[in-house]
Amino acid sequence: MDLPAKVDIREVSLRDGLQIEQPIPLEAKLELLAAIAATGVREVEATAFVSPSKVPALADAPELAAELHRFPDIEFSALVASPNGAKRAVAAGLRSIEYVVSAADGHSRANVGRSTAEATAQIADIVAIAHDSDTTVEVIIATAWDCPFDGPTPPERVLEVADAATAAGADRLAIADTIGTTTPGRVIDLISALRPRIGDTPLGAHFHNTRGAGLASAWAAVTAGVTRLDASVGGLGGCPFAPGASGNIATEDLVYLLRDSGIDVDVDLGAAIAAAEVARRAVGHDLPSALLRAGDRILG
Amino acid sequence: MDLPAKVDIREVSLRDGLQIEQPIPLEAKLELLAAIAATGVREVEATAFVSPSKVPALADAPELAAELHRFPDIEFSALVASPNGAKRAVAAGLRSIEYVVSAADGHSRANVGRSTAEATAQIADIVAIAHDSDTTVEVIIATAWDCPFDGPTPPERVLEVADAATAAGADRLAIADTIGTTTPGRVIDLISALRPRIGDTPLGAHFHNTRGAGLASAWAAVTAGVTRLDASVGGLGGCPFAPGASGNIATEDLVYLLRDSGIDVDVDLGAAIAAAEVARRAVGHDLPSALLRAGDRILG
Repeated sequence: MDLPAKVDIREVSLRDGLQIEQPIPLEAKLELLAAIAATGVREVEATAFVSPSKVPALADAPELAAELHRFPDIEFSALVASPNGAKRAVAAGLRSIEYVVSAADGHSRANVGRSTAEATAQIADIVAIAHDSDTTVEVIIATAWDCPFDGPTPPERVLEVADAATAAGADRLAIADTIGTTTPGRVIDLISALRPRIGDTPLGAHFHNTRGAGLASAWAAVTAGVTRLDASVGGLGGCPFAPGASGNIATEDLVYLLRDSGIDVDVDLGAAIAAAEVARRAVGHDLPSALLRAGDRILG
Repeated sequence: MDLPAKVDIREVSLRDGLQIEQPIPLEAKLELLAAIAATGVREVEATAFVSPSKVPALADAPELAAELHRFPDIEFSALVASPNGAKRAVAAGLRSIEYVVSAADGHSRANVGRSTAEATAQIADIVAIAHDSDTTVEVIIATAWDCPFDGPTPPERVLEVADAATAAGADRLAIADTIGTTTPGRVIDLISALRPRIGDTPLGAHFHNTRGAGLASAWAAVTAGVTRLDASVGGLGGCPFAPGASGNIATEDLVYLLRDSGIDVDVDLGAAIAAAEVARRAVGHDLPSALLRAGDRILG
């Protein structure tokens, strides 16, 4: 099997992890961020510049952004859902933004009030706003496998968004299993279909563990050539459809799996478990991470 | 990727799942077994013929064995740890037994009071006892990747047990991640090393989800050519080192992953989730299964 020597993990607990939680104070976010910085991770999705009324947990995006200079070794990104959000993110000093386009119309309309085609049409505007300020743009294709409203997403819809994103000059792409339903076979199929369409554009993947298959899907993505994966400490990021049971794949579980499989990652395992504990205290409830309970191997 | 068309699941909740639980009444086991039979699974590990004082939860093995004729469509097996256990299993009517040999001396001595070499030397006796009664023998190689006492298990130790088992006429082999520490890379490495050594002997694999990697390891095993996997409904089978957090990989989570990836299994998903609910009631506490919380896909 042809495995990569290294996989880059982007820590998304501060954005995807916290967005459905009750808002926590800025000080608690900075404490979590300090714990995350101690893991050695190179990329952190810090927040989102979206409607504060829709996502109150991230309403402090400008205030948080103002503190990010404390962590000069990390490349911070913020999620946006519109050109206006991109402008706000750039104005707040972010130099890496993620623009989400749902490949399924049902989720796209529920999430941002626009069809997939309408959201796709805004990619060029967002790229222009970002590139004017030396900012990179990643287009995250949400509901890349399934939509909670439309059911399975035809792969061609994902490919069309990817084509439009690369044509519009997006710097990176990612595919996201928004509701935690995909599995290794479909992960490999979609990546295999995408790869020849996107040239050298870096491709990341984002999985939730809602149906237990998140880490298996992450492994499958790596075997299919993906070397960029999102994860959140503790597996923070519960899904409203399955409270307490799901969330993003846990950073520490992913680090354990990859490193034990012989793949290098920048993230220190012990520090990631410690950061998961900080995340648990910050939100005040248990998190689904396996290593937070079981710890590293008993010996060795 | 060269995937098998079908994977056979062996349901191990009644043995590995229940063995560390407080004993439950025979009637509750039969209710669970009826729910498991309704899933359509073809193989069930029903119990173990071991010391009742060491494993009180399985002390009713003869009584349970006497009821198995109610389920004529299932191939039942029982675990044994000695020739005497094999005799008891055969006398109780079992026609398929599993003999466990720990590849690590530390676990072997803690588990059965014998070194790996001593346990291996008994394979021929057990095969003779079984074959005299038209009974098949699977040798399960425990601590195939890590031992809680000795640390990582050198792969050569696993290969030596496998060589001895095939030489002694064992009908099947399995490799077991007894403490839930292995990961996809090491799974593929060990299977790749084993395959050329064991000829046509069927090879199964047994994973725990203690560190979150159980399903990823199962997927990796399938990609390496394994088509026999153990699982337990609900993920029953907590590990004493991590109470409530681990267990066997959950049958329903495995079925979801495999079928969604295009691989056929005999087990009905809805019936497996229903059986997991029966298991949860039987033991009186939550189980780690993801699908027991999240259910099947929202749509489709």
